[in-house]
Amino acid sequence: MFQVHSSYTLSTTTELPFADAVARVREELASEGFGVLCEIDVQATLKQKLGADREPYLILGACNPQLAHAALEAEPELGVLLPCNVVVYQQHEQTHIAAVDAEQMLSIVGNDELTATAAEVRSRLARVVERAGQG
Amino acid sequence: MFQVHSSYTLSTTTELPFADAVARVREELASEGFGVLCEIDVQATLKQKLGADREPYLILGACNPQLAHAALEAEPELGVLLPCNVVVYQQHEQTHIAAVDAEQMLSIVGNDELTATAAEVRSRLARVVERAGQG
Repeated sequence: MFQVHSSYTLSTTTELPFADAVARVREELASEGFGVLCEIDVQATLKQKLGADREPYLILGACNPQLAHAALEAEPELGVLLPCNVVVYQQHEQTHIAAVDAEQMLSIVGNDELTATAAEVRSRLARVVERAGQG
Repeated sequence: MFQVHSSYTLSTTTELPFADAVARVREELASEGFGVLCEIDVQATLKQKLGADREPYLILGACNPQLAHAALEAEPELGVLLPCNVVVYQQHEQTHIAAVDAEQMLSIVGNDELTATAAEVRSRLARVVERAGQG
């Protein structure tokens, strides 16, 4: 079930266990032309740095090279907002998948040359979230 | 010279060569309590994926564990906007340093519980950019 939970994400909940959801997100990102350029295991990082106990939470930094290249040509400082993240996390024994809403995120930039790219990224990430959540 | 070039970044230009600017940014991030959780060499990535020739461009994903932990407790989906990036790039033979303006970025979330954290991150990253740019 695909839902808009917030103003800045495209998200869903899924019956999949956490690890399976991560694997499905990776597959769907690849099918939409995104490489994963960085990963942050939030649970492990906050355990190591703070001794904090959290449920599983993974940030995947996704990048479509063509779209990123075009966007950086139009807006050199845009790297502060890249890559586009998809997160998978467990909360209250439920698995959640959420992608950043690229249109919302790029709205703070205020560069009309990014409008088409933002819409394209949003569409692709929406498909990733929806299909990955279906298992 | 510290400048606000855009609505969504805190940025400066510096006389430092690119590699020296990167080293100074790393030092100043550490002094403000930020670890670098991921790095993306944009120049190398776009060369490899597209064969594109770009000037040096590095994205450093910075995270202060205490602030990130507090923010995620208040806003579970916030990981789609983390970590906070600082970029160093060369353009027209000049070195630029830019950090995301955390207050602007978090404005799209619309969660009042993040206001103080956003202001704190913005202040710290502003100091990083300003001091690193001074060499």
